[in-house]
Amino acid sequence: MLQKFDFEVPTQGRGTYDLTGQIDRFLETSGVSDGLCHIFLRHTSASLIVCENADPAVKTDLEAFIARLVPDGDKIFSHTAEGPDDMPAHVRSVLTHTELSVPIRERRLDLGTWQGIYLWEHRASAHRRKITLTVLSG
Amino acid sequence: MLQKFDFEVPTQGRGTYDLTGQIDRFLETSGVSDGLCHIFLRHTSASLIVCENADPAVKTDLEAFIARLVPDGDKIFSHTAEGPDDMPAHVRSVLTHTELSVPIRERRLDLGTWQGIYLWEHRASAHRRKITLTVLSG
Amino acid sequence: MLQKFDFEVPTQGRGTYDLTGQIDRFLETSGVSDGLCHIFLRHTSASLIVCENADPAVKTDLEAFIARLVPDGDKIFSHTAEGPDDMPAHVRSVLTHTELSVPIRERRLDLGTWQGIYLWEHRASAHRRKITLTVLSG
Repeated sequence: MLQKFDFEVPTQGRGTYDLTGQIDRFLETSGVSDGLCHIFLRHTSASLIVCENADPAVKTDLEAFIARLVPDGDKIFSHTAEGPDDMPAHVRSVLTHTELSVPIRERRLDLGTWQGIYLWEHRASAHRRKITLTVLSG
Repeated sequence: MLQKFDFEVPTQGRGTYDLTGQIDRFLETSGVSDGLCHIFLRHTSASLIVCENADPAVKTDLEAFIARLVPDGDKIFSHTAEGPDDMPAHVRSVLTHTELSVPIRERRLDLGTWQGIYLWEHRASAHRRKITLTVLSG
Repeated sequence: MLQKFDFEVPTQGRGTYDLTGQIDRFLETSGVSDGLCHIFLRHTSASLIVCENADPAVKTDLEAFIARLVPDGDKIFSHTAEGPDDMPAHVRSVLTHTELSVPIRERRLDLGTWQGIYLWEHRASAHRRKITLTVLSG
């Protein structure tokens, strides 16, 4: 069986946003106790990651690392019409993930103890990001 | 239900090749109006990405970025038998994606407005790349 | 139909560990001749990759590349309580993969000739890594 859920996540610019609880609420609704949850982000300037969920410094360090790896305003980029953070956002998206699948157990994402699912906003300004969940069950 | 489709994509060396239309034609054939499409690339020196589909400069910038990040002929590499672009191709593949899943709606890939699915050839020379689609429906 | 299998992989510290044969044995057990196998790693300091399976130098070169890209003890990192390899492990995980899906054909992973599935341990010390397989069939 296959169910779909669409939702939006408002962001306040660059940074990570925990989606784990929100997805778990959809899974509760789905009634699926055992299955697979596919998470799809409908954008190319933000991404999805599975990340450590305990120490906020992990996410700050991740942001510092990627900002150094893919610098805003890099002279190598020609696609600059939307600003110095536009092309870096596309590169960050390609180097991380647009979609993820996670097992479902007991109507929840069956993650490891230290795992959370995060939306990573790569643009400097606030956006509304659209996500489609596909819930597969036996 | 689960259906499979195998096809090949000829490349003319390094660069991105839009697969979106070709995959949509297989989905039309499958008759699946609502589901999930898994795309699997059977190689380790090319990859799959979801990328911005409007401005060709995004793909040129992406190529420029990765060519700087993973330079051909880097002295750090010992696996050089097949040429200076061989090991960089494997690294580019690991840093991007060998497989992707995308929701299906109305017999098409249910992508965001600015998203396309691309094969990224990482070898300098032309290749034929094999892809397997798995179409899941409810 | 949907089946699950949980298993653990002991690692002896940093490096890649071939999972292909072990996963194929679970698929043999599952009896699924045609389907899709989802592989989920329950950790944020190790990852999964599809990599060239013939020349061991590819994996050594990959390790050399990522060690230079994400250096242990980098001053940019503040999350250092667990040692100089802790935050780099999280970054390596985000830049590669926590989960992968691979087609199943004739009760085996339907990989390309040169593809293998590897667990990539990013911590310096030995760990036991938990993996959940979800086997989907028609």
